[in-house]
Amino acid sequence: MQHDTFLAGRTHTMGSSAIREILKLAARPDIISLGGGMPSPDAFPTEFIDELYRQAMDHYGTEALQYTRTEGFPALRKALVDHLATQNIEVGADEVFVTTGSQSVLDAMGKILVSPGDRIAVEAPTYLGALQAFNPYEPSYVQIDTDEYGLIPESLERVIAEHNPKFAYLSPTFQNPTGRTLSLDRRKQVAEIIRRSDTLVIEDDPYGALRYRGEWAPPIQTFAPEQVVYTGSFSKVFAPGLRVGYYVAPERVRQWLVIAKQGVDLNTSSLTQALCTEFIAGGYHDRHLPKIIEIYRPKQEAMLKEMKRHFPESFTWTQPDGGMFIWAEGPADADMEKIYEEGIRNKVAFVPGKFFYSDPASGRATMRLNFTVNSRENIRTAIERLGASIRNVLGG
Amino acid sequence: MQHDTFLAGRTHTMGSSAIREILKLAARPDIISLGGGMPSPDAFPTEFIDELYRQAMDHYGTEALQYTRTEGFPALRKALVDHLATQNIEVGADEVFVTTGSQSVLDAMGKILVSPGDRIAVEAPTYLGALQAFNPYEPSYVQIDTDEYGLIPESLERVIAEHNPKFAYLSPTFQNPTGRTLSLDRRKQVAEIIRRSDTLVIEDDPYGALRYRGEWAPPIQTFAPEQVVYTGSFSKVFAPGLRVGYYVAPERVRQWLVIAKQGVDLNTSSLTQALCTEFIAGGYHDRHLPKIIEIYRPKQEAMLKEMKRHFPESFTWTQPDGGMFIWAEGPADADMEKIYEEGIRNKVAFVPGKFFYSDPASGRATMRLNFTVNSRENIRTAIERLGASIRNVLGG
Repeated sequence: MQHDTFLAGRTHTMGSSAIREILKLAARPDIISLGGGMPSPDAFPTEFIDELYRQAMDHYGTEALQYTRTEGFPALRKALVDHLATQNIEVGADEVFVTTGSQSVLDAMGKILVSPGDRIAVEAPTYLGALQAFNPYEPSYVQIDTDEYGLIPESLERVIAEHNPKFAYLSPTFQNPTGRTLSLDRRKQVAEIIRRSDTLVIEDDPYGALRYRGEWAPPIQTFAPEQVVYTGSFSKVFAPGLRVGYYVAPERVRQWLVIAKQGVDLNTSSLTQALCTEFIAGGYHDRHLPKIIEIYRPKQEAMLKEMKRHFPESFTWTQPDGGMFIWAEGPADADMEKIYEEGIRNKVAFVPGKFFYSDPASGRATMRLNFTVNSRENIRTAIERLGASIRNVLGG
Repeated sequence: MQHDTFLAGRTHTMGSSAIREILKLAARPDIISLGGGMPSPDAFPTEFIDELYRQAMDHYGTEALQYTRTEGFPALRKALVDHLATQNIEVGADEVFVTTGSQSVLDAMGKILVSPGDRIAVEAPTYLGALQAFNPYEPSYVQIDTDEYGLIPESLERVIAEHNPKFAYLSPTFQNPTGRTLSLDRRKQVAEIIRRSDTLVIEDDPYGALRYRGEWAPPIQTFAPEQVVYTGSFSKVFAPGLRVGYYVAPERVRQWLVIAKQGVDLNTSSLTQALCTEFIAGGYHDRHLPKIIEIYRPKQEAMLKEMKRHFPESFTWTQPDGGMFIWAEGPADADMEKIYEEGIRNKVAFVPGKFFYSDPASGRATMRLNFTVNSRENIRTAIERLGASIRNVLGG
């Protein structure tokens, strides 16, 4: 894409459309794509969405069609208090804020905090959409090392001491792209580090409710509320087409986040906020969540089983307790873009992992696989094709 | 509000909460506020919103709940082609883009075009929300002079020649705050000027459909499609709580506007886009619009009549053919903030006009009055109180 001179200086940071180009290939109808990041339409609450609509209109009437407060639809902010309490997050209704998907608070954080050249610390790998949200504010990134258990607290501590980042962006639960979850011990260590250094952290938690096994751990926010902006979303437990997310944040930033949001979209849709209010306040969320889990867990199990069968021994991969993704890593010399091309020839697609690193030299031998959108049968076929594609490229 | 040192440099531009503070006073239940900018709930299509919902779910099913394209919900983009053709705007479905309210394309234009210190040309006065959208990108503003017929083309020409702005932000039809509309002749002159100088223009048109009298004129976009980003909205003809706006733009900017939007909110709500699709494609818009006009026209007539009766002869005001606002100007030494305070004592509120100027020294003797939200009876009472408040402060 040509970068014309009439554009702002920051706009050159937004040109990286390599992943768009690569995923265009995956849209061919004969290809099974494990490259997506969407929930399955089967997980949408189609059996009671009409009921939610009816209740929202009955309860809120024209209030659900009018402008609402930039801070959020009042009834939703109230309902979120109990919802957040199930995560041990204790706040009042005036301390919860609604956003247009949790994506939009990432943009707002970049906008209010980052001057060009300021540092943002991110996990390696991290959520690509976060980089896309922050990039226009021209940060420089510092990577936090991770291992099979997620981010390494000592690395975070070193990054803070050496680089003094404006904030760290973390996704400690069923992270996109790896599916990894930080243990309770590491959460406490992270909290201790950021409290001691008074470092702001975005704790992005869109997948936390999608737990298929293992034990729940409280958000980092609960151990360091003055340092953490905690964001949640209705996209994975209700429907992404509503574009409703929410956050709690320390007072020193939330007043600015509201002003930033006002300039961007005035407020999030009142109607979709009213639907989300009924979804959690009416107990629908609690009844619906087990159904979503029963859709996704067998798909994930099928994918893990087939990977064991078809992937070469030189590969390792995560065994996440929840979420939407599995992360695989080949031998150091594996070039995942070559394997991607071979995969397309064999009618299977994925996302090469390098796109999830702020440092473009990282992650060459990694890949992200999604298991939520395809049927189990298609997952089996796709993994078989992918295994063959890997062998075709790497031999063995 | 304290501006802490950990914030980005740009954030100081976002602190101007004077208007928030002043309008807080207007929220008292005993005060009739003409300060709002909302449509009347009576103008919402409550009689057929359920039908629209039913049709949207029947036609689009889970597509209305899933992520959709950043560019917009495909069926809505298609439906907007005919809708825009009624405004003489001839585009294909892949040349129309949907945004989260038309507000969000203002943010995106600032983001992709404005480096700190770059100039933006704005009408004097202009839409306050546009300034709030642009401010974080640290522009310097240049004011374009206006008269009773809207912006003066010669002033635009001079501003372009002297200041070479990144773009000009114009609202040529029933402008917020003045209600003024640019004549066909001036539209053609503006088009000629921006074509000749190849200057980008945002033509913001949220009120164009609310015409109570007078003759329609085509958008400036139709005379200079390569220079104009034309934005429309469902907020005033359907419901602002949906947060759906749209734009057409020259190719050199629209590709960047889409990338900017992806970082901010991924896409606008599929569900509310599906409702808007049914609203225009099903003919509801064309049937509903006359009803909205029949609600607003008598309110505007009542306000104009009472102003004639109660405002001092030293005041002049606009007689708009449509929209939601009337703009009044007192004698040069009138201090509208003093009149505001006296108004609050007399239980009436409005917005002092100075907030609608990029130059804080301008507009001291002006005021904006909204006529859409209050009943005719309350409008009469409010204008009587306001007339008395003006006389109390200015004498006479």
